[in-house]
Amino acid sequence: MPDLLNMRFIKALLREPIDRTPIWLMRQAGRYLPEYRKLRAKTPDFFTFCQTPELACEATLQPIARFPLDAAIIFSDILTVPLAMGCDITLLENQGPIILNPIQSEKAIDRLKTNVIEKMEYVFSAIKLTQKELNQQLPLIGFAGSPWTVATYMVEGKSSKTFEIIKKMLFSAPHLLHRLLEKLTTVTIDYVNRQVAAGADVIMLFDSWGGVLSPQDYKIFSLNYMQKIISGLNKKIPTIIFSKGCCASLEAIAHSGCDAMGLDWSIDLEHAKERVGHKVALQGNLDPCVLLSTPEIVRKKAKELLAVYQNQTGYIFNLGHGISKDTPVENVVALMETIAG
Amino acid sequence: MPDLLNMRFIKALLREPIDRTPIWLMRQAGRYLPEYRKLRAKTPDFFTFCQTPELACEATLQPIARFPLDAAIIFSDILTVPLAMGCDITLLENQGPIILNPIQSEKAIDRLKTNVIEKMEYVFSAIKLTQKELNQQLPLIGFAGSPWTVATYMVEGKSSKTFEIIKKMLFSAPHLLHRLLEKLTTVTIDYVNRQVAAGADVIMLFDSWGGVLSPQDYKIFSLNYMQKIISGLNKKIPTIIFSKGCCASLEAIAHSGCDAMGLDWSIDLEHAKERVGHKVALQGNLDPCVLLSTPEIVRKKAKELLAVYQNQTGYIFNLGHGISKDTPVENVVALMETIAG
Repeated sequence: MPDLLNMRFIKALLREPIDRTPIWLMRQAGRYLPEYRKLRAKTPDFFTFCQTPELACEATLQPIARFPLDAAIIFSDILTVPLAMGCDITLLENQGPIILNPIQSEKAIDRLKTNVIEKMEYVFSAIKLTQKELNQQLPLIGFAGSPWTVATYMVEGKSSKTFEIIKKMLFSAPHLLHRLLEKLTTVTIDYVNRQVAAGADVIMLFDSWGGVLSPQDYKIFSLNYMQKIISGLNKKIPTIIFSKGCCASLEAIAHSGCDAMGLDWSIDLEHAKERVGHKVALQGNLDPCVLLSTPEIVRKKAKELLAVYQNQTGYIFNLGHGISKDTPVENVVALMETIAG
Repeated sequence: MPDLLNMRFIKALLREPIDRTPIWLMRQAGRYLPEYRKLRAKTPDFFTFCQTPELACEATLQPIARFPLDAAIIFSDILTVPLAMGCDITLLENQGPIILNPIQSEKAIDRLKTNVIEKMEYVFSAIKLTQKELNQQLPLIGFAGSPWTVATYMVEGKSSKTFEIIKKMLFSAPHLLHRLLEKLTTVTIDYVNRQVAAGADVIMLFDSWGGVLSPQDYKIFSLNYMQKIISGLNKKIPTIIFSKGCCASLEAIAHSGCDAMGLDWSIDLEHAKERVGHKVALQGNLDPCVLLSTPEIVRKKAKELLAVYQNQTGYIFNLGHGISKDTPVENVVALMETIAG
């Protein structure tokens, strides 16, 4: 266990006693912050920004400087992995990523490189730099996309609504999809181990699209590979799985080997707590749209969630998805005051 | 109860004995059928097509002529209601509806008309015409959108990914949203009663976006209004609620007064059956993307679902969402053979 000034987040993840509920926010370093928009304006290309360790470090630290958060998360993107493996990716404003060479055939899958760890060196450099700046005050979260979620972008070629191309592959040629997921898993295991070696204290896996699968297929094509990544960690550090829209699979996730589970707002926190007990910690699950309302409403909704655990361990306050770029900063202030006092 | 040659669907809805599992498909009259594409080509404007009873009737009957389906569903759209209430709606190919005058203020809500039933006469005419053609062979399903789902389009002005505008209203000005939902409910009660009077044998409420709400808000802002519609039916006919992505609310839906619940594929049918028992019938829940694979795989997946009820009553085979326009007809044939023999 690391020796940090603020151990609240790590302790809650491990279900050890805490003084109060820890808080961090998905996408806490982001466009709702004027200082982030200012920093990004100098380097409008998103991947160039991510690939410049000094900028990634500065973005990571911005929300920490402003709010009493209990964790930092390295500024990066889940598409760093397919980018390193040879995907040609462009980000279009408000449209999400476009993969110019979508991976839709056996040949395309076979062409993907897996010996690519040095291409992601910029992430490890950003982690080292950030850890130096954090100076053991707070834990730093490293992360990766789940192989399934990353594969949806690679195969569909863009953000999809129906996932028809990858699902056609899943149902008609599951061996092909498994080959792609295996390759992604191999690279991701390497990737998270190197993040830990560089100083990440916690690893979170983002599975934004696990919920588009049936519970049966979710286990086979998504959870299964996240379990392999967790088992592949060389050092035993706390892990979080966040599969959006998977409320039918809570028990399966709780038994996957992770320490905590991210929850979106499609399930009551109290109900989720009953279902998983203390098998894992829970993280979430405020609808980010609550932060578009008023400070009074934010306080009320945050207190309702706090009441479920009443500062018992095993719960980390967070949103059920990334914070919206249109969030007024005063609402984040009201949230932080409610949780962190 | 109507006196029809094929009563299998109605009986399964009411949990009465049946000879085999009934089947129909959401969007069964649609673009995957070459005869539908041919018919639509003559009237490319979707609303003009819907508003021509002879065309709506012909589209409704096309899949019935081809496949041994156990129900017909009137060809129409959930946006007929806001269109009648004064929304200016355009449909853009592959982009979904655009509301040119989105309903985002008290004034805009107050301006919406509710005395509009005669503007939807074309739907009742289409139902009468179709019933005449069906000649008591099969039940005909009438339908409406849930007030919440219809309101998302009216307020957001388009298909949304994050629903930030309507959710901001929900959290900051719930009384405004309730006023809009009340108006929609008033019109919808009138609308479904007139559909029943015209000959609809079953009423289904489509709540495509119920799942973007927390379970607590789903009850207050979506289910609550669907219950009012069901209670408002003058004639006791079978009703179906289909709220996509609401697997945390199955019990609440089962106790809402509906006879059946539509299920998407985010929950195992067996698990859903355990949770609701015989309180309601279940309808679904094959991932429509299975129909993009091969006849063999379609047969295998359909048999897995059939095995859950083993031709016991209380289950209606369907997809978990509308059939994709890219579905090969031979896969629908394989599905029909598996279910209807």
